[in-house]
Amino acid sequence: MSRLILASASPQRKTLLSGLGLRFEIIPSRIEEDDHPEADPRIRAQNLARLKALDVHALHRDATVIGCDTLVVASDGTLLEKPKDDADARRMLMLQSGKTSLVHSAVCVVDASGNTHEGLSTSSVTFKKLSTKEIDWWIESGLWKDRSGGFQIDGLGQLMIQSITGDWTGIVGLPVFLLGELLEKAGYRIQ
Amino acid sequence: MSRLILASASPQRKTLLSGLGLRFEIIPSRIEEDDHPEADPRIRAQNLARLKALDVHALHRDATVIGCDTLVVASDGTLLEKPKDDADARRMLMLQSGKTSLVHSAVCVVDASGNTHEGLSTSSVTFKKLSTKEIDWWIESGLWKDRSGGFQIDGLGQLMIQSITGDWTGIVGLPVFLLGELLEKAGYRIQ
Repeated sequence: MSRLILASASPQRKTLLSGLGLRFEIIPSRIEEDDHPEADPRIRAQNLARLKALDVHALHRDATVIGCDTLVVASDGTLLEKPKDDADARRMLMLQSGKTSLVHSAVCVVDASGNTHEGLSTSSVTFKKLSTKEIDWWIESGLWKDRSGGFQIDGLGQLMIQSITGDWTGIVGLPVFLLGELLEKAGYRIQ
Repeated sequence: MSRLILASASPQRKTLLSGLGLRFEIIPSRIEEDDHPEADPRIRAQNLARLKALDVHALHRDATVIGCDTLVVASDGTLLEKPKDDADARRMLMLQSGKTSLVHSAVCVVDASGNTHEGLSTSSVTFKKLSTKEIDWWIESGLWKDRSGGFQIDGLGQLMIQSITGDWTGIVGLPVFLLGELLEKAGYRIQ
């Protein structure tokens, strides 16, 4: 079995991949997300996942590399990235309160031969109608930091999420079902 | 704030409740699930959650007690409990392969005054069409043990689950969104 590399520094992705019992290394890519402002978030996520995987694979050609990118789109079409500060996080929460956002999670697996295997997992997240007090509490918690859309569906953030459809791991940042299929196509055996 | 007790020995429930940052004790109830064969799984789950919470509350009247019960129903209406052995787990997987099961997760919170606050969180789980090889692998993993319906949506089990609708934590066994609402009604402050 070739080396397996996760091209992401996200602790949530590390936890999910560890849950599969695989041995892997973490080598974040050098791709700047802001350099890729494609209009369609699905295409943008897929492009970023591929660029991240290829960037790391170029330096580690003997390895199977996993690249991922997750984008959140509010119900009015606004693309929600990671909040810059308290005010930005508050704006994102108010926009999503009582509504349903889409989460596009793209994965690209580059195998040791340099072939790419990719796919997109789209899920929806329906938020509780949040009171000002609840939003204040969430902003003060600081748990919105480094989270696309300013929310999380694990831990305390779950108190704001009424329901989801899709793969919950995709919302966290690494859609495990899709990843399993792509690793299989790449000849990397999990099962 | 009164003492908080989780009336369940499930490690998955412990992990989810810990994720809310609450201090709590674990005191499993003495309720035998087999003694409650009500026909409607939703009523059965709700009755069991209430009985478990009240059983523990009777011994700890100063505490707020959380009781929960989770039942899985296959698409043909078969109630799926925890598999008894390999053959039972295989039967459950084959029944659910390529289909959608319902997961009913009931919660009952008994407050320090003895009042009950309860609700039901129902989610659906759609399975991949599983090959014999995949089922063999899952049975051999032993990860189906102590899991209603013989599957899990965390860890390796996620490779078999194509999508869900609802609250993923309810499928794991403790629907956190519902729990948050019930604790609030019970006067127990999280936020």
